[in-house]
Amino acid sequence: MDLRQLASLIRKGDRVALAKGITMAENDPGRASGLLRRIGVPGNAFVVGITGPPGTGKSSLVDRLIEAYRREGLRVGVIAVDPSSPITGGALLGDRIRMTGHAGDRRVFIRSMASRGWSGGLSRATSQVIRLMDAAGFDLILLETVGIGQSDIEVVGVAHAVMVVLMPGLGDDIQVSKAGLMEIGDVYVVNKSDLEGADNMVVSLLSVFRGGVRSPPVLKVSALSGEGVDKLVDALDSIRSRFSSGNLELRLRSIKGMIVETARGAAMQKLAEATDAKAERLAKQVLGAELTLEDAAAQLA
Amino acid sequence: MDLRQLASLIRKGDRVALAKGITMAENDPGRASGLLRRIGVPGNAFVVGITGPPGTGKSSLVDRLIEAYRREGLRVGVIAVDPSSPITGGALLGDRIRMTGHAGDRRVFIRSMASRGWSGGLSRATSQVIRLMDAAGFDLILLETVGIGQSDIEVVGVAHAVMVVLMPGLGDDIQVSKAGLMEIGDVYVVNKSDLEGADNMVVSLLSVFRGGVRSPPVLKVSALSGEGVDKLVDALDSIRSRFSSGNLELRLRSIKGMIVETARGAAMQKLAEATDAKAERLAKQVLGAELTLEDAAAQLA
Repeated sequence: MDLRQLASLIRKGDRVALAKGITMAENDPGRASGLLRRIGVPGNAFVVGITGPPGTGKSSLVDRLIEAYRREGLRVGVIAVDPSSPITGGALLGDRIRMTGHAGDRRVFIRSMASRGWSGGLSRATSQVIRLMDAAGFDLILLETVGIGQSDIEVVGVAHAVMVVLMPGLGDDIQVSKAGLMEIGDVYVVNKSDLEGADNMVVSLLSVFRGGVRSPPVLKVSALSGEGVDKLVDALDSIRSRFSSGNLELRLRSIKGMIVETARGAAMQKLAEATDAKAERLAKQVLGAELTLEDAAAQLA
Repeated sequence: MDLRQLASLIRKGDRVALAKGITMAENDPGRASGLLRRIGVPGNAFVVGITGPPGTGKSSLVDRLIEAYRREGLRVGVIAVDPSSPITGGALLGDRIRMTGHAGDRRVFIRSMASRGWSGGLSRATSQVIRLMDAAGFDLILLETVGIGQSDIEVVGVAHAVMVVLMPGLGDDIQVSKAGLMEIGDVYVVNKSDLEGADNMVVSLLSVFRGGVRSPPVLKVSALSGEGVDKLVDALDSIRSRFSSGNLELRLRSIKGMIVETARGAAMQKLAEATDAKAERLAKQVLGAELTLEDAAAQLA
């Protein structure tokens, strides 16, 4: 099947074609880039980035959001960013299995992205998968990250709305603030609201924003019982309505994020193609003191 | 203080100067590069990379190794790679606190690297910190990764010996093999050997290597009780003796890894410097359909 045909099938919402396109984005950057040129940036899907430390219950919240949006009749795409290593956690696997409760639902498409490496490949592929799901007619895309650090913050840069998931007992606001999470969220969720300290966490988050320019909503939610999920959906919907009414700022932010991530991916790709033989030759020169390591790196880059 | 003075103090083993150099490597790539040109690649320290999934007890093993090497009279440097986010885990913090049992020891230097982002910065800084510790006279450097995925595999590429830490119950050998861990280890440790399934894990690892070219040692260890740590040290010492006798292959491998990581870091740095304004302008062109996202990314990169 040529790329033109594949693009056309994806636009018709063909699930097999979509899956094929996603696999191409993950494994074959060159061909995927050709496919994506045909796909363009459809711009109909509203993208929600979901980040926060591991263990805060992001996947369970995603599950609740799928339910809520399906009730509204929306087609929901989910991109779950897993670390490359399949052995890093039964929890992650368990989460994915839980989500497959929606597996029989033709209006839900869940894709777990096993990264080809954090250094650019993941981010590039994530942007591309968003564009593919968008083209395939999904109204809303939930992009769930692992919550490991900087790379998450990069990944959510392509979203129209960023939801930061926290939980009681994570430590004081100063730590949350240090992690860079206070700058990126459009909605803050204190999940596991049944745990002690949830109210304190909310107060402490609000106090961080007080006096600042931004005052994003801070919501107590229990993904377990479903309490507070309706308010979370309301908060996201208020951003979604701005998006739907053609808000340029949101669209620009997302496209900008995608450009940066795609460029990063391309740079990494180019470096990976720099032959092993060349690195080996340079290493020999460094070992022989003919070349500084700094100059060798510059020659390789 | 100028870079020449700083380099000279580091070479004399001055701990404050070393700490200053490391901070420079983390925060100021440009100046650090100047410092590192003066430091060169000393090549006296033996670098052990320690990787494996989270929760397998890497930090406790590092603690045991510090004890063992200190008994041998070696000066030990430890680089613990933490994810950027300080809130990702009490466990990590707990590990670091545990290690500070060695804090009063002037012949041990422990540095936790809070990454400035996974995309290259961490790897670059790691190579540089190794060279700084090496210059400061540390005989052995333990480089402990977070165990999150591909970036770990890149980080340990700079080591002379790679120790992969696993534990019973991680799943079958096929999964371990998928994660790319079977290719990179020089020594395999099944930690938490008191847990059920430790023997099975060892058998299953050995069966993966059977018939292959490589047959790295597979050792049962309990970091908790200390059982098996002596055999682990023996296994590492046998590689260390090859290193000490001037083995070029080990040295080349490490320098090659450092060149690649330094080049990767430089490429990312360059991209980060591409002005935000430029990305914004390109995003507007993409939104206006004057430019494809692919071409915009190419222009940015």
